[in-house]
Amino acid sequence: MPKIVECVPNFSEGRDLNKIEKIVDNFRAKEGVKLLDYSTDQDHNRMVVTVVGEPEALKKAVIAAIGTATELIDLNTHQGQHPRMGATDVVPFIPIKDVTMEEAVQMAKDVAKEVADRYGIPMFLYEKAASAPYRENLAVIRKGEYEGLKEKMTQAEWHADFGPAQPHPTAGGTVIGARMPLVAYNINLNTNRMDVADAIAKKIRHIGGGLRFCKAMGVELTDRGIVQVSMNLTDYTKTAIYRAHELTRIEAQRYGVTIAGSEIVGLVPMQALVDTAEYYLGIENFSTKQILETHLME
Amino acid sequence: MPKIVECVPNFSEGRDLNKIEKIVDNFRAKEGVKLLDYSTDQDHNRMVVTVVGEPEALKKAVIAAIGTATELIDLNTHQGQHPRMGATDVVPFIPIKDVTMEEAVQMAKDVAKEVADRYGIPMFLYEKAASAPYRENLAVIRKGEYEGLKEKMTQAEWHADFGPAQPHPTAGGTVIGARMPLVAYNINLNTNRMDVADAIAKKIRHIGGGLRFCKAMGVELTDRGIVQVSMNLTDYTKTAIYRAHELTRIEAQRYGVTIAGSEIVGLVPMQALVDTAEYYLGIENFSTKQILETHLME
Repeated sequence: MPKIVECVPNFSEGRDLNKIEKIVDNFRAKEGVKLLDYSTDQDHNRMVVTVVGEPEALKKAVIAAIGTATELIDLNTHQGQHPRMGATDVVPFIPIKDVTMEEAVQMAKDVAKEVADRYGIPMFLYEKAASAPYRENLAVIRKGEYEGLKEKMTQAEWHADFGPAQPHPTAGGTVIGARMPLVAYNINLNTNRMDVADAIAKKIRHIGGGLRFCKAMGVELTDRGIVQVSMNLTDYTKTAIYRAHELTRIEAQRYGVTIAGSEIVGLVPMQALVDTAEYYLGIENFSTKQILETHLME
Repeated sequence: MPKIVECVPNFSEGRDLNKIEKIVDNFRAKEGVKLLDYSTDQDHNRMVVTVVGEPEALKKAVIAAIGTATELIDLNTHQGQHPRMGATDVVPFIPIKDVTMEEAVQMAKDVAKEVADRYGIPMFLYEKAASAPYRENLAVIRKGEYEGLKEKMTQAEWHADFGPAQPHPTAGGTVIGARMPLVAYNINLNTNRMDVADAIAKKIRHIGGGLRFCKAMGVELTDRGIVQVSMNLTDYTKTAIYRAHELTRIEAQRYGVTIAGSEIVGLVPMQALVDTAEYYLGIENFSTKQILETHLME
């Protein structure tokens, strides 16, 4: 079975179709690499690419795409609503199949070193690849954005992990690392009371004393006249979808509120759904090798 | 995305390793064909092969394997506990991915015609490929086995669908067709009362007035001191796993019995587990395209 890693690089270009296609072309028609999606946002002036592949092929394609972005994007003239500090802004590697987090971290380091050497871009390791706990959080690293990066990098604690001591003159700096796949899971409530959605969100999320790998907030669905608990599950192997679901149900009970339904936004690893089926059916000794389709991926 | 079909041919040889390997070799190292499993039973003197593949490649491999079985197996000297009427006894095609039942039926007919022409074996279409309702059931077609086939084929209603008017002199006749994938699902009960397992099985299964695509019986798990409702779900797209589970739970309630756990035996299509997760979480508007792994199969 081939090892499969996902990468979701964010590039600071969401308007110029010509540039967008040139960057994305690095992920097309490459052996061992499969482009799943790319979405652009004109207001953010930013593009998010989703690609999966075998480790070596994926690293090569990502390095090439960063090269193209470095050529085409000039942060000195870039404007957009989304915070950014580099032409290639952030590059997470995500272990998907037969790959450990350690291997994904090593991929991030390999790419960081090569990009620093080849293009002269300072590279900042984050999340599971971070070189110190204070460098784990993307928002903290990126604070000050491109415009503040030159000054920030003069501080000892904000030296890059790889590459030069100052930003690339047009491409800035890039944050790169490894993380678990995110599951975006929203639960709709049979009520229009935002205070209920907010209260539940605060109780089930990590910072409020809730589940370790759960971020949550209340959201109003005005067209349906109901509210939603909107969640990001940042490690579904430890904070399972069903646990977030059942905990939300239990917290909603005290308000006399029931669950109207739920949604999974975007991609979800098969294992997250299998874990859910296993829990509710009480399946004993199940192996994903029993899923017929896993054999089709070999 | 390639179309994927499963085939589970049963051959009347479960003892001679040399012959077994020669038959199975037809499914090895073939482009577009993947051998998932083969299991032999000495008492039954029979082998069940599980293989998946793209339609054209799979048809070719199955035709070749039937050719090898025809050469190597002589039903005149075959003995075993399992009923059988041919060297290649039964060949079901099962639509798995981006394939309709109609296409699987057509594959069965294509292979039947080719095998009849090439090897002179009378071919009987069954299940979804049957040429008449009375020919749907395997057990009915096979009744009388190899030894009774010559006489049976003289009756107008038991003429073959393809091939000669009498059995092949050594390979007999073959039953071939198309069906949905089976899901073997067992629910363990927190009781040692066989009468409870039997009563529940009778209520939830089709013949007892229960679910349309559910076969069920009570089974004793002597080493655990509990009983089990053992099920075959013959069309999980219409009789979902969760429905059989919840109905079993409801029927068990009247005896004060709870579900101890469950098990899925052998292979299960991913969609059957996704349906389960969707039901229990109440997921709205989910598409299997959201499952990351489905993109890895393309």
